[in-house]
Amino acid sequence: MMGHYYIGADIGGTTVKLAIIEDNGTITKKWEIPTNTDNQGEAIPSDIASSITNTLKEEAIDTSMVVGIGAGAPGFVDTTTGYIHEAVNIGWKDIDFGNLLKELTGMTVWVDNDANLAALGENWLGAGRGCTELIAVTLGTGVGGGIIANGQILNGANGTAAELGHVTVVPEGGAPCNCGKTGCLETVSSATGIVRKAKEAAEKHPESKLNALLNDATLTSKDVFEASKHGDEAAKGVIAEITDVLGMAIANMAIAINPEKIVIGGGVSKAGDLLLDPLEKAYRKYALPRTAEASSFGIAELGNDAGVIGGAFLVKKNN
Amino acid sequence: MMGHYYIGADIGGTTVKLAIIEDNGTITKKWEIPTNTDNQGEAIPSDIASSITNTLKEEAIDTSMVVGIGAGAPGFVDTTTGYIHEAVNIGWKDIDFGNLLKELTGMTVWVDNDANLAALGENWLGAGRGCTELIAVTLGTGVGGGIIANGQILNGANGTAAELGHVTVVPEGGAPCNCGKTGCLETVSSATGIVRKAKEAAEKHPESKLNALLNDATLTSKDVFEASKHGDEAAKGVIAEITDVLGMAIANMAIAINPEKIVIGGGVSKAGDLLLDPLEKAYRKYALPRTAEASSFGIAELGNDAGVIGGAFLVKKNN
Repeated sequence: MMGHYYIGADIGGTTVKLAIIEDNGTITKKWEIPTNTDNQGEAIPSDIASSITNTLKEEAIDTSMVVGIGAGAPGFVDTTTGYIHEAVNIGWKDIDFGNLLKELTGMTVWVDNDANLAALGENWLGAGRGCTELIAVTLGTGVGGGIIANGQILNGANGTAAELGHVTVVPEGGAPCNCGKTGCLETVSSATGIVRKAKEAAEKHPESKLNALLNDATLTSKDVFEASKHGDEAAKGVIAEITDVLGMAIANMAIAINPEKIVIGGGVSKAGDLLLDPLEKAYRKYALPRTAEASSFGIAELGNDAGVIGGAFLVKKNN
Repeated sequence: MMGHYYIGADIGGTTVKLAIIEDNGTITKKWEIPTNTDNQGEAIPSDIASSITNTLKEEAIDTSMVVGIGAGAPGFVDTTTGYIHEAVNIGWKDIDFGNLLKELTGMTVWVDNDANLAALGENWLGAGRGCTELIAVTLGTGVGGGIIANGQILNGANGTAAELGHVTVVPEGGAPCNCGKTGCLETVSSATGIVRKAKEAAEKHPESKLNALLNDATLTSKDVFEASKHGDEAAKGVIAEITDVLGMAIANMAIAINPEKIVIGGGVSKAGDLLLDPLEKAYRKYALPRTAEASSFGIAELGNDAGVIGGAFLVKKNN
């Protein structure tokens, strides 16, 4: 162990989140740069490298004090080499990102999928602290996932492990998913899925609060939880359906992993107990009793920092 | 590494399979003893110990030449201590089996779930040879499972990982399962489930071959595959249904694990391509395309030896 700092980089579709993190998890410095997706995102590696190099200079931290960079990208990553097969949102395809960033910075680099790093962050300092077995589910525009088993991230044979959003929950006649399949979990229990279900419910129930909201403005998943909280039956029906489906999908995943903790993050998780209570009830209905006994639910604690903290932990675990 | 031999022990409801295995996987000696389930199976540990000790003497192998014993039991195992919480078929509840066998034999002992050891056996010398990520499914009276990820068996937080038979495949109104839930995979795609489905189909189709078989004798899952092979529509419908359900369950599991290989074993797997062809087709329909790309199917190769070979490999991996 030569240095005392870890760099976390969380590459998203609009910004790259960056942080300098100490061995105990303290964030020394946190900043963002825009993600330049022009020309298949070709400038991103050098943008990240120069931003890191400049910030270290500003902070008077010599690169010899940095153990390494842990970077997360939204796509399929070969974690042994840092090669990225595809990261649709930022335009990358077949980029040797890990080696590129290493050359540009002179630092050691580890790369993983962004959802996996968020899981790792929660595993180090958040709601899944210290768990050897952990399932992290991110409910946002889509549904992301990260799994820790035997204390290690699951990456799988070609970087698609823990893609929980693409578990099939509607075998026949489900809605089309971006992945090319139909009936994926993401089509039901993401923010987008909740809004789609709510629109269907609003049409069926013209008297509902949901229908009034739909006519007033753009309906969001938050509105659906709010309407449900205020007793609107149509909204309650939507929440019951999406939590039942999600609870079953997580229970089935838990039968593979037998986790100690299930951490729910992403924008939809801001609904808190309005989401967690029916979700946990559904989970316990579908999980093997002994599996259910071993596990508890929690809302993700690190918010937007989960990725950079996970990046730092990835470096720490490899040293 | 002091010795050159590994002992595998596979404890089943009627017999305990035992073997002395060399470092390269060669089986030096293989034998069985009856499982004495009297008095909650209290004699089993000493029966195993004396049988191992006596056989080593007969084979003129000094215990100093034995690296350790790897034992599999059909139940929930704490693999760090070898403590068995429950193994219903052999009557065990709260047995400190690992330490007991260690005291009785003077050898180092590792214990795991029997389905996990079968997966490990196939991973060492069988259809899943050398895979870092592997899902093994055993289709017998029930449905068992074992998962290897990052090169390690998944045991989970309390020994229920990879209990694939209890994935919920029928959310509402499914058949009752031994585990206390309803609609588990085991109620559909096990030998028992296939026969149950075939009886339903036979009643609906009095003209079917299935119905004739049902009246003639005890219907088995093998009969259903045979009738399907000979073009009986009712039987073909049953096979189509049970492989569709199994294919979806495996695809959903594969979305967590992203395996290189899926190994199908157990009595039902003797149907070979009659099972594998429709199963693989269903799997590819439900799996994420990139996940499907990474994976292939195979029939388990080690038969009844998988457990003892897996036991030996468990010792080998820990040394």
